[in-house]
Order: sequence, then structure tokens, then C-alpha cells
Amino acid sequence: MSDSASPASGVTSPIKVACCQVTLAVGDVAGNRARVKAAILNAAAAGAQVVVVPELANTGYMFADLAELQRHAEPLGGPTVREWTDLTSAHGLIIVGGLAEAGADGRVYNAAVMIDPSGLRASYRKAHLWDNENNNLFTPGTAAPPVVETALGRIGMMICYDLEFPEWVRTAALAGTDLLCAPVNWPLFPRPAGERPSEVVKVQAGASVNRMFIAVADRCGQERGQDWLGGSVIVDADGYPQTTLGLGREGMHVATLNLSDARNKHVSARNHVHTDRRTELYSTPEPD
Amino acid sequence: MSDSASPASGVTSPIKVACCQVTLAVGDVAGNRARVKAAILNAAAAGAQVVVVPELANTGYMFADLAELQRHAEPLGGPTVREWTDLTSAHGLIIVGGLAEAGADGRVYNAAVMIDPSGLRASYRKAHLWDNENNNLFTPGTAAPPVVETALGRIGMMICYDLEFPEWVRTAALAGTDLLCAPVNWPLFPRPAGERPSEVVKVQAGASVNRMFIAVADRCGQERGQDWLGGSVIVDADGYPQTTLGLGREGMHVATLNLSDARNKHVSARNHVHTDRRTELYSTPEPD
Repeated sequence: MSDSASPASGVTSPIKVACCQVTLAVGDVAGNRARVKAAILNAAAAGAQVVVVPELANTGYMFADLAELQRHAEPLGGPTVREWTDLTSAHGLIIVGGLAEAGADGRVYNAAVMIDPSGLRASYRKAHLWDNENNNLFTPGTAAPPVVETALGRIGMMICYDLEFPEWVRTAALAGTDLLCAPVNWPLFPRPAGERPSEVVKVQAGASVNRMFIAVADRCGQERGQDWLGGSVIVDADGYPQTTLGLGREGMHVATLNLSDARNKHVSARNHVHTDRRTELYSTPEPD
Repeated sequence: MSDSASPASGVTSPIKVACCQVTLAVGDVAGNRARVKAAILNAAAAGAQVVVVPELANTGYMFADLAELQRHAEPLGGPTVREWTDLTSAHGLIIVGGLAEAGADGRVYNAAVMIDPSGLRASYRKAHLWDNENNNLFTPGTAAPPVVETALGRIGMMICYDLEFPEWVRTAALAGTDLLCAPVNWPLFPRPAGERPSEVVKVQAGASVNRMFIAVADRCGQERGQDWLGGSVIVDADGYPQTTLGLGREGMHVATLNLSDARNKHVSARNHVHTDRRTELYSTPEPD
């Protein structure tokens, strides 16, 4: 992270990143796995080197209760991670994807894994749980988002609602993340006509204030009455989308990124998005 | 800030807010003052109750050197604040505006003031200086953005590049700000065709992650070779603009806001944008 080092040291530029926007179905573990596998194969065929798939890609989202979630959750050594590991090896990929993780402690976590041809590099448990996830379903994570030094650059990950906490995105950026990969399941909310969804706007801002790339893989379709946004997007270090928003449509978002841009945190001759912070002045009191 | 209190206590809803996008000229103090006064009178005539004017509205921005800046800076008891104080009394306004402040310590600050019919309520000195501001011109502030309990609700303020630090926006929001008023001078930067300027995107995100209104008054025109964005915008607590972006055009942006929306920080039955923070997990190390 030192500015005195070569700005591009340890970064491969450009690289091709794909986010797979797939339809999932709660409870249909075999079907979900097949759809995600097909999407990853498509991405590999398109030349992608990093492939991001949605949150809870093995299970779907709209669980009736904890029993249903537990029935479909898997350990990190389970069939989903095994299949993704085989795919990374066969196609020379880095895969970041979300899954319902059955923890050794008997709890279930909304997790993400990062896998490269050498195997499982890191896992992460969502720290900021959304709505019913927090209603006797998932246990929140207690660890910072991991940042992995890969052959392509430093890749981090977090999950969905996590992205709405600038402190969390900052934490990943300060740890050196060049490319933040985020599996999400964004519910569809109403918004003013002509407006880009607020979730996408927050991703753009998170990238821009940190000069870091962010690749988001969302899902689409409907599940037990819940419509999904389908807002997958890949944004550059200036916060501008590098893919056309295909809101709600199944498909693949592919962008070619110069990750080395993320090593230059200067935004003017005298400004640097991280060292300009006045950390001694920032307060984070709990509200009353 | 207690959720147990009436959510709308101390807030007048709806209120009319105006941001005045004016052309300024460095060194032309009398001309700047007259243009800003005319814009405030226009806003008052349109029924605005809160009026925001740009950063450094008394001086312009592109100073040749410190001597030129010092020649035009004024103390908070100077003619600009006196004129704005007269206007608030005469028209029952709250004015937030930026000016070059000649401090009692002999230094010059990039400051903002908040004035209501009872007089000067608060002043603020920009904490995050942009580029040449930091090159032997201005001294950075060392105090948090003030939040003032006004007759209309809690109003805060910060200046331009300050808005690009989510920690600073969060600090203002956690202190109870319903409406954050921001005088800015946004330089015009290139951006991809069809994209909203990144500065506006960051304002939208800052509003949304805090459920707080933000009103930005930018300048327009050109000054000593510097083009200005003219990106004034008023966004609601969901982060969506309530005014049409009239990029680069002189004019007034007026919106009617239900400030009481900012007292409801819930974004789902179980989610609250402030109490959901995992402050124990956030790190703010200085980068190497």
C-alpha cells in the first residue's frame, strides 16, 4: 500500500471480470448449483478471470424458517465449494460467491468464499444482516472483510447490505483492496422514474471515495412473492459503471479493468482519498 | 435523536429549501455580494425558508496567492455576514453560505455560516481542503460540523470536498442533522457520457446511508481558466434528487422537503441505518 512502491506492483492489468446475474429458487439446491455452474462456464468462455456470483447462490433467500435454511446450508467443505473449486482449477478462474454456510458451531452464516486455482483462499461472514436474516435465521459475522493477494491483484469481498456502511467499505479499502467483489440479493424497491437504484449509487460512491473497483453480482426473478432488482454492476475506481445496467434481466456483466488504477489514491496534485482523512476529528457515537 | 420521542418533534414539515447557483468572480467582492444578494432575494420571493449559497461566495476561488486572498477575506463580523443577517431578518430566512474568513489569529479559513432571524447561529471551517487551498492559502478547520436546532429542524453544514469523506457526513448525521447544507465550488471534471457527476453521486449516497436531506449550492461559469460544474442539487433522505440538475446553468434550485423523514432511520422492520453499524469492527488505520 506504500505509494513509494511501484504503483502497479502485484497487479495484473487489464483483467476481465464477470458478474453473473442468475435466477435462483429457494430450496432448489441442485437447480441453483446447476444454474450457477452454467453461468460460471459462460463467464470462463467469455475470457473472464474473476467471476462473481450472487449471495446465497446455493440456497436462494426467502426461507420459511430456520429449519428450511438449516436443511439447505452446507459447510465450506460441501458440494458447492467443491464444485466451484473444480471450476477454478479447470478454467484458471478466481470465483467469489455467496452461500449459506453451516458453521461447525451449529449456526448458519450468510457467507462468501474466494477460490482460486490453489483452492479456497478466504471466507467471509456477512456482518450487517438485512431484515429477516436477523430474525432467527443467520448469525452475523464478527471479522473484517478479507483481502487476498491474488495473482491478479488484491481482491476483497463483502455481502449486500454490508455495502451500505461506508465504514465497512473503507475498512476493506484501507486493507489494500483493489477489487471488491460483492455477492448480493437486492430486493426490488420503488424508486423515482429515471433514477438509478440507490443500491447502485452507494456502490458507485463507495468505489469513488476509495478509488477502488467494485464488482456486484445480483440475482433476478421472483421468489415467494419477493421481486429482485437484478442490479449487477461493475464500477471503476472513479465510481463510474463499466457495464450497462441490465436491470432485472438474467445475464452476464463483463468488464475489462485496469486494477492498477486502484493503487493511485490521488485525486489532485495535493489530495489523496485516504491520507486526507481527518481521523482525529471523526466521531462514531452510538445514537441515543 | 431518540426513537422513542415523537419522530417529528422539533421539525417543521414541509419546508421550502433553495440552493442558489450563481456565477462568482475572484476579487470582485462588491459584485459577488450583489449577485448573491439578488439570488437570496429571488429565493425569498419564491417562498424559500432555507437558502444555501456557494462556497467562498464573497471572494471567488482562483486566488493568485495568499496576498490576494487576504485582501478580500473578511471577519465573521464583516459586511458579508452583516448583509446576510439583514436579509434573514427582513425575509424570515435561514441562510447558509460560504465565505473566506479572516480569522482573529491572522489565518484565513474556508468557512461557512448559518444565520437565522436571531442572528449568526454557527460558523464552520472546512476540514478537508482541496488542492491549492492547502498550498499556503487556507488553514484547515479542527472542529466538527455544527448542528443547529432551528425553528425548522436540525440543520448542519459542511463545505465541498468535506462531502467526499463519508466519515464526516456520518459525523454530522449522528449529531442529529436533518438537513445538511453544503456550499461548494465543484471544478468541472470529465466524466463518461450520460453519467451524473461523481460529486452528486456521493451526495446521494451520503444522504441515503444516513437518511438525511442534503442541499448543495454550487457555482457556475469560468474563473481564470477554471470551469465550474454547476451541480447544485437537493436530495431527500432516500438519496434521490428533488431538483432537476441544471448542470452549469445559473439559477435557483427549490424543493419542498418533509424534514421529519430524517427522524425515521429505519430502512426495514429490523434495520436502522445508524444502530446497524458494527462500530466495534470498523478500523480506520492510516495507510502506510
